[in-house]
Amino acid sequence: MNEGPKVKLLITYDGTEFAGWQKQRQSKKPTVQGSLEQMLSRIFAQPVRAIGASRTDAGVHALGQVAHFVPPKPIEKFNILRSLNAMAPDSLAFKEAWLAPDDFHALASSTGKTYRYWIHNSPIRDPLRRLRAAWESRPIDLDYLNKASALLTGTHDFKSFQTAGSEVSTTTRTLVGAVWRRRSPTLVEFSITGSGFLKQMVRNIVGTLLDLHFNQEAPEMIKEILEAQDRRKALGTAAPQGLYLMKVHYPEDLDIRCRKL
Amino acid sequence: MNEGPKVKLLITYDGTEFAGWQKQRQSKKPTVQGSLEQMLSRIFAQPVRAIGASRTDAGVHALGQVAHFVPPKPIEKFNILRSLNAMAPDSLAFKEAWLAPDDFHALASSTGKTYRYWIHNSPIRDPLRRLRAAWESRPIDLDYLNKASALLTGTHDFKSFQTAGSEVSTTTRTLVGAVWRRRSPTLVEFSITGSGFLKQMVRNIVGTLLDLHFNQEAPEMIKEILEAQDRRKALGTAAPQGLYLMKVHYPEDLDIRCRKL
Repeated sequence: MNEGPKVKLLITYDGTEFAGWQKQRQSKKPTVQGSLEQMLSRIFAQPVRAIGASRTDAGVHALGQVAHFVPPKPIEKFNILRSLNAMAPDSLAFKEAWLAPDDFHALASSTGKTYRYWIHNSPIRDPLRRLRAAWESRPIDLDYLNKASALLTGTHDFKSFQTAGSEVSTTTRTLVGAVWRRRSPTLVEFSITGSGFLKQMVRNIVGTLLDLHFNQEAPEMIKEILEAQDRRKALGTAAPQGLYLMKVHYPEDLDIRCRKL
Repeated sequence: MNEGPKVKLLITYDGTEFAGWQKQRQSKKPTVQGSLEQMLSRIFAQPVRAIGASRTDAGVHALGQVAHFVPPKPIEKFNILRSLNAMAPDSLAFKEAWLAPDDFHALASSTGKTYRYWIHNSPIRDPLRRLRAAWESRPIDLDYLNKASALLTGTHDFKSFQTAGSEVSTTTRTLVGAVWRRRSPTLVEFSITGSGFLKQMVRNIVGTLLDLHFNQEAPEMIKEILEAQDRRKALGTAAPQGLYLMKVHYPEDLDIRCRKL
């Protein structure tokens, strides 16, 4: 079914204020998808559905979420970026909007995603980072984490790092990069890029790597956990507030096939 | 009156969660001073007063607030830093504690303070910085701001930049540095150090500088406003969430006269 041209949106939000991306029947906080669909439905005066590239969890932030919708009326009549930013709460903003080709799909067209995880690493809590990073008071050995993370790159079945509750046809994914860096004396950053990620996969990888580190296990243990293909073998799940969806990757020719709105 | 040795505290907080530093009879949100005094009074099982170096406004953050109190019992029996951090809400943390000499006073001993002001400078709002920086969508010319700010350094009567409502014996202060820098493509930082600051002085200086800039006035206009010694001549007051108390300065020999707790 050809639904006609799509509108592609680049979205940023403070995950603190949302019950995640995905629409829910009942949740105390709004969802990003629900908020976006409400705004679009008001703008076009008819129901509009929005599809996102990543189902970020409650508390997880986005600097580069991507979504699409099918405009029910000629989009040229609407200054869509300005309208959305005027209606959005402070916790949500729209960075760019494009008219994308008919065959574009925010999720299905995606060739990969990059996430970042921030850890405030200091003996004392940081009130100004408490909703922007996880807190770890013990010294973090980046060499250990980089050695262990490198063992996860490549194409593997990541079933051990998938939290139950989502239906996917395959749990095989390709990790092309997983690197730890110290950004400042008290800020550690993990950057991970892959073809796609299972439910809570980044948080399960970060939590498991840190638990292995602090339990003084050999970094090679991560390989055993991966190969077990069993979620019960993995360890902790890192807190949501440290995680940021940075970028959704698409085929290189998409940019020239899109027109900025 | 010799009150005996003091305890000096280095404090950080997210100003969003507080009605400012100073204790108030009625306020919806807690104050930092009020919260600290409650914690100290619980720890020592008797009323304890705390004196701060800076009366930060509601919404203003601190990375380096300093306070003192007179311990009513021998302080060595208390792990004061650990106790305070265990009792404090997430929005407040204590970075260090020292036993300071009898003549130390957080406010009176201070020789100066450094504040920082952050502006998110981009056409689009940033949800992740909305409580950590002011937002300015128009391009900011740092050369203009640095030229104008330089005219404020030195010893002057800063009455034009004082918001009414505080009683001070003199409105003369010395500014030793006032510098604008671009920290990233979308983050502008103003750093200002002086002997002391009047009520909302930093926010009134930032607001007035930006208004002169966007009104395309000559940078020298700031000098006229300063010399008028009249608050009605100054322009805007910048938003509180961009302001951070970075450091309270004390005489150089204080460090060697203090003992870490």
